Amino acid sequence: MSDLTLYHAGPSPFARKVRVAAIELGTMQRITLVEQHVAPGKENAAYARDTNPLKRIPAMRLEDGCTLLDSGLICTYLNEQANGTLVPAGGDIRWQVLNVLAVADGLTELAVAMRYETAVRPEDKRWDAWSDDQREKIVNALDWLEAHADDIAHDVPDLAGIAIVCALDYLDFRHPAVGWREGRDKLVALHAGFADRESFASTAPGG
Amino acid sequence: MSDLTLYHAGPSPFARKVRVAAIELGTMQRITLVEQHVAPGKENAAYARDTNPLKRIPAMRLEDGCTLLDSGLICTYLNEQANGTLVPAGGDIRWQVLNVLAVADGLTELAVAMRYETAVRPEDKRWDAWSDDQREKIVNALDWLEAHADDIAHDVPDLAGIAIVCALDYLDFRHPAVGWREGRDKLVALHAGFADRESFASTAPGG
Repeated sequence: MSDLTLYHAGPSPFARKVRVAAIELGTMQRITLVEQHVAPGKENAAYARDTNPLKRIPAMRLEDGCTLLDSGLICTYLNEQANGTLVPAGGDIRWQVLNVLAVADGLTELAVAMRYETAVRPEDKRWDAWSDDQREKIVNALDWLEAHADDIAHDVPDLAGIAIVCALDYLDFRHPAVGWREGRDKLVALHAGFADRESFASTAPGG
Repeated sequence: MSDLTLYHAGPSPFARKVRVAAIELGTMQRITLVEQHVAPGKENAAYARDTNPLKRIPAMRLEDGCTLLDSGLICTYLNEQANGTLVPAGGDIRWQVLNVLAVADGLTELAVAMRYETAVRPEDKRWDAWSDDQREKIVNALDWLEAHADDIAHDVPDLAGIAIVCALDYLDFRHPAVGWREGRDKLVALHAGFADRESFASTAPGG
């Protein structure tokens, strides 16, 4: 039975995080996917009015008409509905996983913002100091994730692992020049260990 | 006993959200405040290396050396440590409050990004279509919050109410031209009802 509607786009790393989580939780059959493209300067008046005032994806409409407007919130909702284990319920491990998730999401936000700066913004309006700063933060975040890779599950992905793989694949897709693999053996192993799972393989960006 | 260190800056709406939450929870005496200023293009190499690779504030160092790197995560940690009620534990109200929180945080992100675009980025690098789009989303988010104001607590603030007031005060501080009060009586009442609480009054931006 499909009672949830997920607004998504193939290249979106945040929408992919939700789809991977839903597949891992075994609840994808509850979800109807609706393609929705957003970008700075793109109007999307109907989407803003009827679905998400922030004009972001993903968004997920529940059966009662309430629409959840944040990827982390949607994943938390799906996890609690399924009595899942994507987020540890207590102990130090809870804060470690949620903290790694926050950095992986922060990395993804930086990568999306840099995509807008270097591919969507008119060339004469780009600000090199800003891009340099973003790139430096992306490298910092990758180094931090490498140093904290052991804090999260490696057998079955938790929400932090899902967010990391979605971030890394997005870097391969939009910013291959970042070269995230170099000197980051733990991230390479984590990524390789999860790549063949149906959840990731069936949702790859550009796939 | 002070066992937590919060990196913050007076004007930061996300750092303020944490300080308001800590005061409401009665745990401010556990926290040592450390001023830290960040901005696009500002180097902050030591802060990036030792504290937050994303160079964002707030960040909160715990006694065991772990540093939480996201304002929502820090608030959740403080709330759970204090057995607080800033976030409802279950029921539809849980998703309503977390969803309002997501939109208030999204509004704040838009307002901070617009501040960077219109005050930090060199004038000849500013892109009007981008600012127009941000401003439209800010208005959309305000209208959405007005329509959903009844979903959250009005007697004692929950985390969504805290985030809304921090967002609205930041608009007054940095973007008064947005005119958030106009036609939004419920937000005006919510804001006025909380303004005199010590948590908000003692943390006002520019105060």
